[in-house]
Amino acid sequence: MTVNLKNFLNPKIKMSKMGEFQELQPIEGLEISSVSADLYGDGRDDISLFYFQEGANFAAIYTTSKITSASINWNLKIKRHFVKALLVNTKNANTFTGIKGAQGLKEIAHSLSKNLTLKSSQSPKGVSEVVKITDLLFASTGVIGEDFPYLKIKNRIPELVKKLRIEQNKFVWFKTATAIMTTDTRPKLAYEECKIGNKLVKLSGIAKGSGMIAPNMATMLSFIFTDANIPSVILKAILRKVVTTTFNSITVDGDTSTNDMVGIFATGKAKNSKIYNVLDPKLPEFEKALHRLTLNLAKQIVVDGEGAKKFITIKIIGARSTTMAKNIGFSIANSPLFKTAVAGEDPNWGRIIMGIGKSGENITPNKVQIKIGDHMVAEQSKTAKDYKEKDVKEYMKWDSINIEINLNIGNASHTVYTCDFTHEYIDINTDYRN
Amino acid sequence: MTVNLKNFLNPKIKMSKMGEFQELQPIEGLEISSVSADLYGDGRDDISLFYFQEGANFAAIYTTSKITSASINWNLKIKRHFVKALLVNTKNANTFTGIKGAQGLKEIAHSLSKNLTLKSSQSPKGVSEVVKITDLLFASTGVIGEDFPYLKIKNRIPELVKKLRIEQNKFVWFKTATAIMTTDTRPKLAYEECKIGNKLVKLSGIAKGSGMIAPNMATMLSFIFTDANIPSVILKAILRKVVTTTFNSITVDGDTSTNDMVGIFATGKAKNSKIYNVLDPKLPEFEKALHRLTLNLAKQIVVDGEGAKKFITIKIIGARSTTMAKNIGFSIANSPLFKTAVAGEDPNWGRIIMGIGKSGENITPNKVQIKIGDHMVAEQSKTAKDYKEKDVKEYMKWDSINIEINLNIGNASHTVYTCDFTHEYIDINTDYRN
Repeated sequence: MTVNLKNFLNPKIKMSKMGEFQELQPIEGLEISSVSADLYGDGRDDISLFYFQEGANFAAIYTTSKITSASINWNLKIKRHFVKALLVNTKNANTFTGIKGAQGLKEIAHSLSKNLTLKSSQSPKGVSEVVKITDLLFASTGVIGEDFPYLKIKNRIPELVKKLRIEQNKFVWFKTATAIMTTDTRPKLAYEECKIGNKLVKLSGIAKGSGMIAPNMATMLSFIFTDANIPSVILKAILRKVVTTTFNSITVDGDTSTNDMVGIFATGKAKNSKIYNVLDPKLPEFEKALHRLTLNLAKQIVVDGEGAKKFITIKIIGARSTTMAKNIGFSIANSPLFKTAVAGEDPNWGRIIMGIGKSGENITPNKVQIKIGDHMVAEQSKTAKDYKEKDVKEYMKWDSINIEINLNIGNASHTVYTCDFTHEYIDINTDYRN
Repeated sequence: MTVNLKNFLNPKIKMSKMGEFQELQPIEGLEISSVSADLYGDGRDDISLFYFQEGANFAAIYTTSKITSASINWNLKIKRHFVKALLVNTKNANTFTGIKGAQGLKEIAHSLSKNLTLKSSQSPKGVSEVVKITDLLFASTGVIGEDFPYLKIKNRIPELVKKLRIEQNKFVWFKTATAIMTTDTRPKLAYEECKIGNKLVKLSGIAKGSGMIAPNMATMLSFIFTDANIPSVILKAILRKVVTTTFNSITVDGDTSTNDMVGIFATGKAKNSKIYNVLDPKLPEFEKALHRLTLNLAKQIVVDGEGAKKFITIKIIGARSTTMAKNIGFSIANSPLFKTAVAGEDPNWGRIIMGIGKSGENITPNKVQIKIGDHMVAEQSKTAKDYKEKDVKEYMKWDSINIEINLNIGNASHTVYTCDFTHEYIDINTDYRN
């Protein structure tokens, strides 16, 4: 996709010289490595390890799908709020892989536990600590239902642990974010910093996701690492809040994955003063930083939506409730007819009307106002007075399309982000497994 | 679409010699005409009139969209159960066309009322009866939000009424079914007959619909004409029942139109003995015939789905409730990822798993069994024991794909029908209005 990220990302964000990406900073207390377990058969990196020498507070949100991967089942079962490592594999979802999938994962966990314990015992600090299998988290993404290649992964664990590095320059982050990709055409990275009290706190985040993207996590993995010192329960509360308007407000195709996971890991190395409750006045700045970071990553996922050529922002205002605004936003954003019209650069706002109508929300048609860019296109149940199709057609050629719908029946609002629906989406998904 | 209708339509249905269509029979008490009001600018027929000299009992089901066309608003407002005529226009939906759209429709109604009254006074029977505007029904299909070309239509009303004919041979039905099309590539026609008591009763039905097809009526018009003598309230009850498993069980793209209408008109000319309640033992045969007819038309719509190359039947069995079965069926049938996999002839059943999971229905993953054709592909949360990808790949090349999912947690079932998602869908919808 040729969209210039600068068009819609926070203009204040400093873009790195590596393309349009921000330069991610190292997070103290974290070590990273990624290698190839040859899952793709072409030597690309496909397994990644994130290791916290002294552990990290942790919170995560998972897919709402009723069928989940063995890795998500594992994470949910151990219910840890303080973890030592996260292992991510791509290519294979480890979903609907039966007992063998779960057992394979356990074997990997044992190997990882052994190798990390060994590493820990060799640490210069001499603090030898056993890394238990319940200290470990897993994430998988890829094809559902194919045998989980646990041996291939297990065999590479020693190498993966050996390669763990404290150094996290922009190249390391780029390499890692690339290693968790599937059909993504580019890695997703974002960086923020803020103050908690008088301490500077860093947040480095990566994400993957391109298709099977819908609200409630979609086929998406995102891992955010911070040196903030925040208890897990508070991390969870903040994460839950920010995903509502970020990761849970994007859709590519309305499909929801069995494997989604957004996790935040806090090493505490920034040594900010302890936080005891969610109302702590030192928190809002951190929440804002996390919101900027997750919104940035969420938008990068949409921009890289399978086959996407245009980034679409749909803002619903004047709704009776946020739920109403969100339902209408997604009703439009998930409509293949609306998305193909945008792909065709056709200001066919009838399909926006269709999307509003089919949402089932009790709106007042006469009050609805629809804007495409700055152009009012429809109001009072008809074409707007000054509507000039030629102008709107010109606007539709842009890479980033803004649509605003004022329901004029209340004060609630919600914004969703999506992309257009193109030939390339069909191409990618008709022969995804080949 | 090259699917041979014989693959999936009731094999007992006698196909006419006109391609694969059944030969529709004339319905006594009905007159038909269609002409061009030049709405498309290429001279094709675009307005059709159905006139009942002595009126007809009538029942209809409309779109569930919260935004509806001026024609549907008209029909809902007059609340008639006994009608004289139905006028259908294509090209323009008369939706979000403001007061002008509603006023234009009213002008057309007045002209139609006048012309039909005149015709009635000239009838050989000499029964001069005033046709009131409230005796008239309307249906529109086409682009939303464009000015309703009421003058063009109004100017053709005299000609349309003049051309009304009692003769309804197969060519007349074919011409009429063609006149109500939009992006359809072929007309949809079906015929059934049955006995009510000792009287033979005929049902001739037509439909249009190709995109914006989803449960709850979709962009679809269907008009069924019968000479049965059945009160409107009973017609409504039967219609409501049969659409559940026919028109409301199909989806092309999950989008719902503002203009959908399924109507049944009964002239009573078969002179079967009067029916007083829905439990009348003479009714089940009629209900079955209507079910066959609507299922036939519904399937024809899916086969002609925009860009469709494959007809897909998804049968959910062993569900706890019909609602559960239906939700899961549509969750899969509306998934772009599933539909593109079928287009690619890829037995990627992981996307069926995804569809089941994202439905939100509380299933037991371990109990789910998935069959593609006669091939068991997944059970006990993993690939089925005897699964041979090669065989299933071969099966996926067929034009008509059957998928059966046994949830094994109850006795309810539901079947939905859909088509695959191809390049051609994108082509049709990116420049729909050009």
